[in-house]
Amino acid sequence: MSELERLLDTEPVVVTAGIEVLAGALEAQSVEVHRTDWSPPAGGTGAALASLAAAPAVAEANKVAIARLLEVRPHLVDVAAAGEVIPGLTERTFLHAGPPLAWPDASGPMRGALMGAMLYEGFATTPEDAAAKLEAGEVEISPCHHHQATGPMAGVISPSMPVLVVQDPDTGRVAYSTLNEGLGKVLRYGAFAPEVIERLRWMEKVLGPVIGDALRRTGPVDLRSLIAQALQMGDDGHNRNRAGTSLWLRTIGSALIESDAAPVADLSSVYSFIDSNDHFMLNLVMAAGKLIVDAASGVEHSSLVTTMARNGTEFGIRLSGTGDRWFTAPAPIVDGLFLGSFTVDDANPDIGDSAITETIGLGGFAMAASPAIVGFVGGTATGAAQRTLAMYEITMAEHPAFQIPILEFRGTPTGIDAVLVVRTGVRPQINTGVAGKQPGVGMVGAGLVEAPMECFIGAVNALAEGLSEL
Amino acid sequence: MSELERLLDTEPVVVTAGIEVLAGALEAQSVEVHRTDWSPPAGGTGAALASLAAAPAVAEANKVAIARLLEVRPHLVDVAAAGEVIPGLTERTFLHAGPPLAWPDASGPMRGALMGAMLYEGFATTPEDAAAKLEAGEVEISPCHHHQATGPMAGVISPSMPVLVVQDPDTGRVAYSTLNEGLGKVLRYGAFAPEVIERLRWMEKVLGPVIGDALRRTGPVDLRSLIAQALQMGDDGHNRNRAGTSLWLRTIGSALIESDAAPVADLSSVYSFIDSNDHFMLNLVMAAGKLIVDAASGVEHSSLVTTMARNGTEFGIRLSGTGDRWFTAPAPIVDGLFLGSFTVDDANPDIGDSAITETIGLGGFAMAASPAIVGFVGGTATGAAQRTLAMYEITMAEHPAFQIPILEFRGTPTGIDAVLVVRTGVRPQINTGVAGKQPGVGMVGAGLVEAPMECFIGAVNALAEGLSEL
Repeated sequence: MSELERLLDTEPVVVTAGIEVLAGALEAQSVEVHRTDWSPPAGGTGAALASLAAAPAVAEANKVAIARLLEVRPHLVDVAAAGEVIPGLTERTFLHAGPPLAWPDASGPMRGALMGAMLYEGFATTPEDAAAKLEAGEVEISPCHHHQATGPMAGVISPSMPVLVVQDPDTGRVAYSTLNEGLGKVLRYGAFAPEVIERLRWMEKVLGPVIGDALRRTGPVDLRSLIAQALQMGDDGHNRNRAGTSLWLRTIGSALIESDAAPVADLSSVYSFIDSNDHFMLNLVMAAGKLIVDAASGVEHSSLVTTMARNGTEFGIRLSGTGDRWFTAPAPIVDGLFLGSFTVDDANPDIGDSAITETIGLGGFAMAASPAIVGFVGGTATGAAQRTLAMYEITMAEHPAFQIPILEFRGTPTGIDAVLVVRTGVRPQINTGVAGKQPGVGMVGAGLVEAPMECFIGAVNALAEGLSEL
Repeated sequence: MSELERLLDTEPVVVTAGIEVLAGALEAQSVEVHRTDWSPPAGGTGAALASLAAAPAVAEANKVAIARLLEVRPHLVDVAAAGEVIPGLTERTFLHAGPPLAWPDASGPMRGALMGAMLYEGFATTPEDAAAKLEAGEVEISPCHHHQATGPMAGVISPSMPVLVVQDPDTGRVAYSTLNEGLGKVLRYGAFAPEVIERLRWMEKVLGPVIGDALRRTGPVDLRSLIAQALQMGDDGHNRNRAGTSLWLRTIGSALIESDAAPVADLSSVYSFIDSNDHFMLNLVMAAGKLIVDAASGVEHSSLVTTMARNGTEFGIRLSGTGDRWFTAPAPIVDGLFLGSFTVDDANPDIGDSAITETIGLGGFAMAASPAIVGFVGGTATGAAQRTLAMYEITMAEHPAFQIPILEFRGTPTGIDAVLVVRTGVRPQINTGVAGKQPGVGMVGAGLVEAPMECFIGAVNALAEGLSEL
């Protein structure tokens, strides 16, 4: 009996790919069915994917872009006033998280944070006054990402705020982020009560100058090394930064003891402030991330995702090969754990530049390193590990420094390939905080969200159009 | 056809338990064999195990003992001179790790540490002089465990050394441990070079008083909480204490900044010393452990292991139900990773009181929480998790506070039952540092070792004899 005869002579076993109606019909007739995990390319991108796959220029560009992304070694070097160091941040400019935004489209927490910044800068005397002046365009608003900067949640940076200065010693390039305010009622979650403004003033007068002085005496702090160590200690670099905060505080502790930059009571309050806020390291990771993704930007034809950011209204991405162009979609709602009596009905859509951590192989991509994070964002430790494993499907590399102990020190999945996202239907996952949708409320929870496929479809189509110019 | 007929009519599938010669013979005849993981009770303890299993007093005693072990909440309260606080530590007494020991039986590192303590206390002027005086019995040596104290490796405590004071606020009971000297050439590994003695003097004059002053101002530090948090950050509490050291340093940082107990340069050097030594927390865990196991001691008929400790010559255990009696066996050699050009031939047999961490559900019992430890002690992350799983076979409880994230927050296996060790043949595993066998060499590696079965056989037989008095 030939192989073919044997095949026809025995009971069929059918492997199906994507066609559920066929699989179901076969099962109804008691045929053994094995389903493969396959779906057609999203959003009618078949032709775009085919042309991108056929173009050697794309593969070449991706090699260049991912190599640049992996080689950056960000060092924290200083703290300075935003208005003095951030390019284009004039006296009457506020920066914000995510893709470009106009005041009328701004969500509650984004409005709250911008209003708080008006009060903090002395541009307005009451919240109503602040809103009216923002409505009237008295202050220009512009994305952090357009100014070598990032900010978590609303991400508002105004000229007087102190910012972290992160530098690549090889190239001298710099990037910036605000200093983390802690949890609860804080500006980045859209709160603007007097206590919020008072804390911002203390950060400007005490926290920033004291840390800046300490850094100038300790010398640059290697953030890539610090993040790598923190991943071995259960951080994901986005929502769990307890180890990174601890290790970073260790690096400046002696300098704080020796400091004469402020009275002892202020030095002690700086130490206590950082000690009381396990998210302090997040902003260091984000500034490092901005330096990293900017290095990988602008490689023509590359499908590497260099930006994922949300302004509370829209989710936007940018690719290395499509320059400064944003591809946006409505920001999704985050699923997770809510604080106190808050529910998902209180949640604003996804907001913040902090998805830059996922863009560099951390956060939702590194959850296998951070099983304890499920206490903050929900789910199980096993599920957290599976999320990391899924992200290897859509990334270009395993990070050489960011290793995951329980995966036998495999590098985190790093460098999202928009082509792979569209081809596989696997969306980048982000773990994130959740802001209340009303201005002034603050944080209401934390959880997980997936980047909208629409952004990636738009980006891949645009990248394919670029190929026709070859 | 009846079930029995069917059995006789089909090919046999044989399940074997412990009898390898039968399994092998069946396989040679192409019979399908499933081996179960079973071995007879160790060392002819069958009768003892039977009488212990039949005695309700044992189960009742174990309930009491494990409850006492789990309920202790050790707090770090002070640092003081050993001679001023440790009961029975006279001017001419040195304490040492492990079961009782006489100078002629002491191993190289134990001799080195005792000689170093002679030089440090000014009782001798040269190493040779020190050895001669110890030989002549000019100083009495006694186990730390007999004096509410513990010390890692050689565990030598002399009267002038500063010790951590750990207290149970509910009962007022206290326990002690030395302060960790760091790695490399240090007394506890048997080194006694001038730099070693000089560091001990600095610890006495600066480190101890400064930390003591800080603790008296911060108030008691809850070590159970600190250890629980550190396990969520990749510590095992024995050989990996990076998180615990970081978290503990955070608790006293502000107090160091505010301190006027010493000049600023000394305060800064204290901070730097702790920052440079990720094992600093080990000694805090050990002092906490001593408080915990002492609470569980002396419950008549209980088979709970309250002590596992090694003096470099012998490995000794004690049970709650057999009082102060030690059950010893020759100390085994540790298998692991060796530093530089050292090999297993340079290794001293297992040494130190640090196995107290395993006795309270940490160290080798908590390795699933600490995948990154394999870089220090060898093996794989998967293997580390399997070692923890094996320890559930021989323990009485899952620790309510010490949870392992990747096991979905299951408590660490805690409270070794000597009866279970003997019955299953599963030996407690310990991860530990390795001292060079020559006096003066110091640390040569780190790795894993299993407690000798002989200790448990002796203990179980003695416990069974105690039952006859019922």
